[in-house]
Amino acid sequence: MERMEQKIQEYARLLIDVGLNLRRGQTLVISASVECAAFARLCAAAAYERGCREVVMNWGDDFLSRERYLHADGAVFDDVPAWRRHFYNDYAAEGAARLAIDAADPETLSGVETERVVRAQRAAGEALDPFYRAQMNNEFPWCVASVPIPSWARKVFPGEAEDAAMQKLWDAILATVRVTGDGTAAEKWRAHLATLEARRDRLNALRLRTLRYRNGLGTDLTVALPEGCLWSSGRSVTPAGQAFVANMPTEEIFTAPHRLGVDGVVYAAMPLVDNGNVIDGFHFVVRGGRIVEAHAERGEEFLKAAYTVDEGASYFGEVALVPYDSPISRQGLLYYNTLFDENARCHFAFGEAYPECIEGGTAMTRAELRERGLNRSINHVDFMVGTPDLSIVGTTRDGREVPVFVDGNFAL
Amino acid sequence: MERMEQKIQEYARLLIDVGLNLRRGQTLVISASVECAAFARLCAAAAYERGCREVVMNWGDDFLSRERYLHADGAVFDDVPAWRRHFYNDYAAEGAARLAIDAADPETLSGVETERVVRAQRAAGEALDPFYRAQMNNEFPWCVASVPIPSWARKVFPGEAEDAAMQKLWDAILATVRVTGDGTAAEKWRAHLATLEARRDRLNALRLRTLRYRNGLGTDLTVALPEGCLWSSGRSVTPAGQAFVANMPTEEIFTAPHRLGVDGVVYAAMPLVDNGNVIDGFHFVVRGGRIVEAHAERGEEFLKAAYTVDEGASYFGEVALVPYDSPISRQGLLYYNTLFDENARCHFAFGEAYPECIEGGTAMTRAELRERGLNRSINHVDFMVGTPDLSIVGTTRDGREVPVFVDGNFAL
Repeated sequence: MERMEQKIQEYARLLIDVGLNLRRGQTLVISASVECAAFARLCAAAAYERGCREVVMNWGDDFLSRERYLHADGAVFDDVPAWRRHFYNDYAAEGAARLAIDAADPETLSGVETERVVRAQRAAGEALDPFYRAQMNNEFPWCVASVPIPSWARKVFPGEAEDAAMQKLWDAILATVRVTGDGTAAEKWRAHLATLEARRDRLNALRLRTLRYRNGLGTDLTVALPEGCLWSSGRSVTPAGQAFVANMPTEEIFTAPHRLGVDGVVYAAMPLVDNGNVIDGFHFVVRGGRIVEAHAERGEEFLKAAYTVDEGASYFGEVALVPYDSPISRQGLLYYNTLFDENARCHFAFGEAYPECIEGGTAMTRAELRERGLNRSINHVDFMVGTPDLSIVGTTRDGREVPVFVDGNFAL
Repeated sequence: MERMEQKIQEYARLLIDVGLNLRRGQTLVISASVECAAFARLCAAAAYERGCREVVMNWGDDFLSRERYLHADGAVFDDVPAWRRHFYNDYAAEGAARLAIDAADPETLSGVETERVVRAQRAAGEALDPFYRAQMNNEFPWCVASVPIPSWARKVFPGEAEDAAMQKLWDAILATVRVTGDGTAAEKWRAHLATLEARRDRLNALRLRTLRYRNGLGTDLTVALPEGCLWSSGRSVTPAGQAFVANMPTEEIFTAPHRLGVDGVVYAAMPLVDNGNVIDGFHFVVRGGRIVEAHAERGEEFLKAAYTVDEGASYFGEVALVPYDSPISRQGLLYYNTLFDENARCHFAFGEAYPECIEGGTAMTRAELRERGLNRSINHVDFMVGTPDLSIVGTTRDGREVPVFVDGNFAL
């Protein structure tokens, strides 16, 4: 047990040191559920050890969020109060680091009117636009990580008693973030990030123009990549030169598709948890970049709500490559949490693209990004498409065909 | 245990129904430590049952507050960010109800530089003035109540294991708020408030000009009451006519002294917890209303910080009468929490006076209140002075002497 506590302590330090690479004198905002208070405290203590200016908490609670969606006056979902605008936008403008401890019951909003969730999302998209924009542009260091909470652990390990499920989810998460007790996690992350960067460099060198995805689920999708597209991996950098890791764990190499250049059919390979609901057994038909049809065996209304929240949500914003034999995939778990599930499988996102995925993108206006083909939306929803038989064939800008994925893994 | 859960549920409903008397369509802001999340959720659910517009949480955490005071950049204590100003001042302006669940380790700020706490208090006093003012004026319904947390329970019951201490503190608190399982607490509160109001009416009818306090501790203090002074008790009323109970429990009848009319020596009868530190064995020497000397056996620096935070903090703002045989006093506990300890004993407060304590006061400007003798400060610190031998002799405006307290209890 003491060893477990040491690992959890090391994990908290890893998020501050490697995830955020927090600077002396920098403010840190931590978003966490009240159920994660013990871990949030460890992160705060680690931040102060590094000379953090101030740790500001942004607490949440699944139960109260759900009660609010169920029972509050509908008008509250159309409005974001001034204090909340200032909370998000002012810390973003100051360049405060942000740590999101993302742990939730996957079905926390089951039974809630989808329309309320959509209204809230639209209102936040508008009111907190300066924050979201700064985050997508990497203007401050940010890191999304996770720790177990009971409701979630029970969903991942449904046969287990709560304590055992919590312990198993801790073990699984600590493995994904390379906190294993043998050697320091920070060193392992340096090696891991270098591996991802080497892979990223090989992809960038290919100068791919299109990718064609095919597998036995029925996926047959062609994805055009914009001129000047850049593949990215684990490490991002702020304009001031502060390197950070936006997702821990991370196993992906990702870029942005041309928003009008996606065509075909794509089948989800895993359930998706979006806005507190599970969506499963779904596929999209895409024409000229736009999702023109979508069907889900479960949660179709939530899927439709997600890709119609604004016009851009019906277009793709991310293409990410993760080998089927990635360490998270080999755990064989369904996490019901995109942070983990997207790092087990190749995935796409519909919605907003990351400006860093095109040369000079973080310095471009939105109009310029759009003209270059990068999608804009208040949403960004990753969904998993990788399977053991996935094939991805690339075509380079000079017309060569290159196998990128064969049988679910990198062929490069 | 099930019975215990029912009582706690009844307590949550009592706070919403009687404490706040929450109106349909009214916003509710709940301040609570993350350790009190389970109880905060019950209160929120009870509020939505009554048609609450929205429950907004203001979470706190002892550990993180302490870390901040110990390790944050000093400059953060001089500033209140815009989001926090809006949070407090905007909900106050809207007339949102406020429930404060006040539970803390009594020594949570032990070892913190007092100067940092004072700077933070001054900055908040200025930035959140619209909120504090609206609260002192009863412009919105507010209620302070409490539930056990482990660090606090261990202090109240130092000989007990944590679980037993928590259970004992729950039992004690539920008794103070009349949630006893025999008959409904709401009905008991109606009767209790009527008893307090009858006592209040007798005091008001006397038209007292001064009170002289004496006991064997060495207290000999004369307190002048301003012209038009009004005694108040448990129930307050907003300008819109919404009756509420600002403290649960409450056993006191209180008014405001003339800020320049307090003279003599007064000895504390109980330790005081202020700003996360314990102050004990203290007395004040008061001349022309002003505290000119103060000594404490323990925590003297915290006491001095409290009554010098601004000019008005050195003058008295409240005179409150609580019989020594009040139910909370008979429990024989030292709660280390003013909400309870002040309802076991006669007490004073130094700092701000309540405008409701003078005829027409809630409609007066600050200058008018001051001219009438009511004190103004960013602070309001209650301290307990009642003893079994306390005598209070009143002098009426027409010159009669009236025994108000004899041997620690009401003589009226």
